Amino acid sequence: MYAGIDIGGTNIKAVITNREGKLFASGKVRTPGTADGINDAIIGLVRGLAENQGTRMTSLKAIGIGAAGAIDGRKGVIILSPNIQAWRNYPLARTIEKKTGVRVFLENDATAAVMGEWWIGHGRKFRNWIMLTLGTGIGGGAVIDNKVYTGQSGSSLEIGHMTIDYKGRPCKCGNTGCLERYASATALVATTKAMLRKRGASSLRERTKSEPLTAKMIYEEAVKGDAFAKRAMDDAAFYLGVGIAGLVNIFNPEAVIIGGGLSRAHRLLYPVVKRVVNERALPGLKDNVKYLVMKNEDKTPAMGAAKVGIDSSDL
Amino acid sequence: MYAGIDIGGTNIKAVITNREGKLFASGKVRTPGTADGINDAIIGLVRGLAENQGTRMTSLKAIGIGAAGAIDGRKGVIILSPNIQAWRNYPLARTIEKKTGVRVFLENDATAAVMGEWWIGHGRKFRNWIMLTLGTGIGGGAVIDNKVYTGQSGSSLEIGHMTIDYKGRPCKCGNTGCLERYASATALVATTKAMLRKRGASSLRERTKSEPLTAKMIYEEAVKGDAFAKRAMDDAAFYLGVGIAGLVNIFNPEAVIIGGGLSRAHRLLYPVVKRVVNERALPGLKDNVKYLVMKNEDKTPAMGAAKVGIDSSDL
Repeated sequence: MYAGIDIGGTNIKAVITNREGKLFASGKVRTPGTADGINDAIIGLVRGLAENQGTRMTSLKAIGIGAAGAIDGRKGVIILSPNIQAWRNYPLARTIEKKTGVRVFLENDATAAVMGEWWIGHGRKFRNWIMLTLGTGIGGGAVIDNKVYTGQSGSSLEIGHMTIDYKGRPCKCGNTGCLERYASATALVATTKAMLRKRGASSLRERTKSEPLTAKMIYEEAVKGDAFAKRAMDDAAFYLGVGIAGLVNIFNPEAVIIGGGLSRAHRLLYPVVKRVVNERALPGLKDNVKYLVMKNEDKTPAMGAAKVGIDSSDL
Repeated sequence: MYAGIDIGGTNIKAVITNREGKLFASGKVRTPGTADGINDAIIGLVRGLAENQGTRMTSLKAIGIGAAGAIDGRKGVIILSPNIQAWRNYPLARTIEKKTGVRVFLENDATAAVMGEWWIGHGRKFRNWIMLTLGTGIGGGAVIDNKVYTGQSGSSLEIGHMTIDYKGRPCKCGNTGCLERYASATALVATTKAMLRKRGASSLRERTKSEPLTAKMIYEEAVKGDAFAKRAMDDAAFYLGVGIAGLVNIFNPEAVIIGGGLSRAHRLLYPVVKRVVNERALPGLKDNVKYLVMKNEDKTPAMGAAKVGIDSSDL
């Protein structure tokens, strides 16, 4: 058996699976703010899930981990993580290996999510497709000729740091106008907060008196018909459409798949995205694109991380 | 023997080669403004070059053509060409086949250029790399895992229509803020013209009294030390850097290769491009990128088109 871990800015999710992709157990915890906290959370999750299956953690064949940021997969090092500040040239794989005695393989979280979608999701139906994971940041990936593309160092693709406005909003990565500053869950919340500081009636004003504003809340109110919340969602969807139009022109994919927390809003996002892509991408490239949503948000990325562990431990 | 044709917005170039990539003959003519004119030019070039080699045109095994725009390679149809208005759903391959009796295969001109660089150029040294052809427009392509990537329909990649400013300059393709509106030879000329309408001493003012402004002229004056021309070049290079930074984040390539007429200015362009990529792309992705220039502008794209003809006629 193998473990797969998906470390996001918000939650750490884990699965126990086998070589055939059968899911034995899964779980999740909130992402701690420190490197040590994250290490303990990973080990606690894996040990708990393994023992629930009547197995010792140490008898696992490998642990695959997907983590946010720029990753050196060969060395198992997190070079830089825009969303988890504690990691900078952090040897996560070796650290977890020492603490567990199990071989650990590290991959960019978005690439792991793509791997999961390729292995057990919609991706099985296509040879060339792209994915965007809309969460704290925007990750992404591409499958080209039925293979998950990982660039020269096994670390890309950082689709969220594609520029859509070269003189636009500053990004933590050092660039300005990165897609994820406009169309991630974080960006949706930030722009909605800025909108709320100005005029405009909205049920969000009432709700944010007692709880902090979240992307989920904006989505809920937009679905209920709040025009203000709907406008904020449309705004994020517009920018997502600009980014996807660029990616359609670059990749000519058969399908676009969105994942990540914000993808639950796909019924609001996709109509706008499709209109914008239709306005902006080239004929012949935009015509046959399918728009899909990741199948199982809570398990697919962690399953993909497990698959990375399976494939890497075979080498 | 095989013929390869590269149809650009400015020139049509042709080569005669064999399966091993030996160049027997090459030639070029100005691109006519009509579809019929282009057909006649292609046939004239191929017939002339073949006969100079003591061969009849009809004994060629195949003709490969690279043409600007969105291409349906399987049908041999040009769907839309932003730079040659006469083509819209135009069956170029079938038309030339009927007139020559030789099998004809059509490919996007930038993809053909990538194929040429992959076959006989710098591309042989790398497994993952991207190319941008800077001419009338900006084309481009990617080699992934040592294979030229052509998307689902064999028509991409339209890197020049990547958005760098979603509310920016309108593009003929219908999008706004396309990279090629900022960093192609055409864009360089347009922005320099706009700059010349305002103040500022420049040797370009004198030269443009007797001849039309060209990218070549701006480059020449910038090299001679004209600060105004240098600023115009730096401007185009900045935008090219923004685009390449995005592509580095998306593709994590080993190398970036520029081709097309404007790439002759690489000694002015690349220092600015490298600075901008260094400021804007992510660590771990930007660190090991090599910056190169297409080896033989006049022959490589046409050789790539010939290679498309060789490979396709084998199927």
